[in-house]
Amino acid sequence: MSSGQIRLNTATGEWVIYAPARRKRPQELCQPPQPFPCITNACPFCDDPTRIEPIIFELPNADKTGWQTRVIPNKFPVLMPCGNSDRISEGFYISMQGYGKHEVIIEHPSHDQTPATMSIEEVKALIETYHQRYLDLMADPKIMLAIIFRNHKKEAGASQPHPHSQIIATSFVPRHRRWHEEEAQRYFDRWHRCVYCDMLRDELKEEKRIIEENDSFVAFVPYAAQVPCEVWIMPKQHKADFGSITEAEKGDFASILQRVLARLYKKLDNPAYNYVINSASRYKAEEPQLHWYCQILPRLTTPAGFELGAGISINPSIPEVDADFLRDCTL
Amino acid sequence: MSSGQIRLNTATGEWVIYAPARRKRPQELCQPPQPFPCITNACPFCDDPTRIEPIIFELPNADKTGWQTRVIPNKFPVLMPCGNSDRISEGFYISMQGYGKHEVIIEHPSHDQTPATMSIEEVKALIETYHQRYLDLMADPKIMLAIIFRNHKKEAGASQPHPHSQIIATSFVPRHRRWHEEEAQRYFDRWHRCVYCDMLRDELKEEKRIIEENDSFVAFVPYAAQVPCEVWIMPKQHKADFGSITEAEKGDFASILQRVLARLYKKLDNPAYNYVINSASRYKAEEPQLHWYCQILPRLTTPAGFELGAGISINPSIPEVDADFLRDCTL
Repeated sequence: MSSGQIRLNTATGEWVIYAPARRKRPQELCQPPQPFPCITNACPFCDDPTRIEPIIFELPNADKTGWQTRVIPNKFPVLMPCGNSDRISEGFYISMQGYGKHEVIIEHPSHDQTPATMSIEEVKALIETYHQRYLDLMADPKIMLAIIFRNHKKEAGASQPHPHSQIIATSFVPRHRRWHEEEAQRYFDRWHRCVYCDMLRDELKEEKRIIEENDSFVAFVPYAAQVPCEVWIMPKQHKADFGSITEAEKGDFASILQRVLARLYKKLDNPAYNYVINSASRYKAEEPQLHWYCQILPRLTTPAGFELGAGISINPSIPEVDADFLRDCTL
Repeated sequence: MSSGQIRLNTATGEWVIYAPARRKRPQELCQPPQPFPCITNACPFCDDPTRIEPIIFELPNADKTGWQTRVIPNKFPVLMPCGNSDRISEGFYISMQGYGKHEVIIEHPSHDQTPATMSIEEVKALIETYHQRYLDLMADPKIMLAIIFRNHKKEAGASQPHPHSQIIATSFVPRHRRWHEEEAQRYFDRWHRCVYCDMLRDELKEEKRIIEENDSFVAFVPYAAQVPCEVWIMPKQHKADFGSITEAEKGDFASILQRVLARLYKKLDNPAYNYVINSASRYKAEEPQLHWYCQILPRLTTPAGFELGAGISINPSIPEVDADFLRDCTL
């Protein structure tokens, strides 16, 4: 199968991925989407080895009787580990082959679980899986960025109901990420401090937007949250790179992530959401101005032409009100 | 009523609007959205002066027996013309009052029309209305950017089925727009040419992504289209500012916009879409490196965690295939 193509818009500086495994003819796109398969025995991620892809990685469950997490290649990959990442001049434009990796992390053997309802130990196995796969993917020198993310429910782009996360590893750094790096660089050059460390210090002093805190992490609704009940989970220790997470931090990250997702689940009736781990791109892992964090975006509103065209979010909620709302919950 | 607030994320450089007229408590956001009112006599935009807001602007219909387009304040404005646009230091953060303007353009007296089904003359009245309102809004020195956009159908964020566009005028330029300005500036400083003029020249030479062309405009699927059947309509004459559109160009813009929307309507069964007119922000209207254009984004796919987190689009379609598909249509 061809590796597809990645194209650069010369005017805007944005790369777009054209994934052959997801290719559709335009007329197919206006058909109503298929409903989720609701019958467990039709789920490709349930425990039947004949129906799943070759296993890349597996963690055993607590009593070693089976698997707890499993990693497989995405059956409809966005990028593929064939070809190369050389840039190709196409006259006015630039393109490259669709080199990269796209894996699915099956989070739990049970079809009906979700991190909000799992035990902390189970979420810890998930974080361990993220970490192992992250390190392995970043070991490929052609990879510039590995993005760990989770789509919860169809409205957030999930195509399978079985609990799963994904990792996409790209051979380019998108403009969106560079822009965040540049903002942090400008702040560092002015103040000689990490803007994210300063944000964390301010949030801990202000207290009013904090949802959860433990030894290693703080979860808060950002001052300028883009969507209602957006939550950032940030390590207290300055670190640009998710790959450098310690054993103690993995436990604390699992605990705070599970507790924040449980609050969203209980207070917003199991909402659709995305989360993404924003970690440094290659060559930036040791930079003093960058700081990894997990960004959780509930999908309670629909972005429209103004948001898409101007890149300005309109949030109908107030971050301090959202924080009060999410704190007021018995776990 | 208070003017609301606009907040800056100090780390990412992104402004977010908190609109009091759209405020919801978090728990209200997880209720299913209300269906469109389908009974014409319940529509606030149909011709009953007692049910609509004060009229800001109106164009008469062809035989002068009534109105053709009407502009009213948005009943649930994102920004409000009270207060000021002074930036306020909030310790680590920066905010300002929600100063700005938000208008609704009722495009046609008939509830069941849409630009794809209107006559060219009716769409020309719409473009004339855009132009008049754009000039008037930009005459306010506190306004930095005026964004004309259209949301078609609920999936694209429309809350009323009666055909309408909107204009939001902001007292700040979002990071997203500055980044596009910076990319164009870099290109100009290197080549001493407008990147959009060069793109247009390349597209006209290549031909394969062109959908429509007339004396003043070209409509094409961009080389790096972010979504299936994305179309850019660009003036052939170099102009940064939509406000400088000529009488002849207004007619040609109406014609090409109507024809492109009619193609989408026929070929994709009246799809949800957004369009936005990307025009220069204040002080940039005369810049040689910027070029206004109308960007049409059909909503046939759902962005997920990877797109939101990494800012990378995944397009399951191929621009050249989409262009062939949209050209193959009898109007």
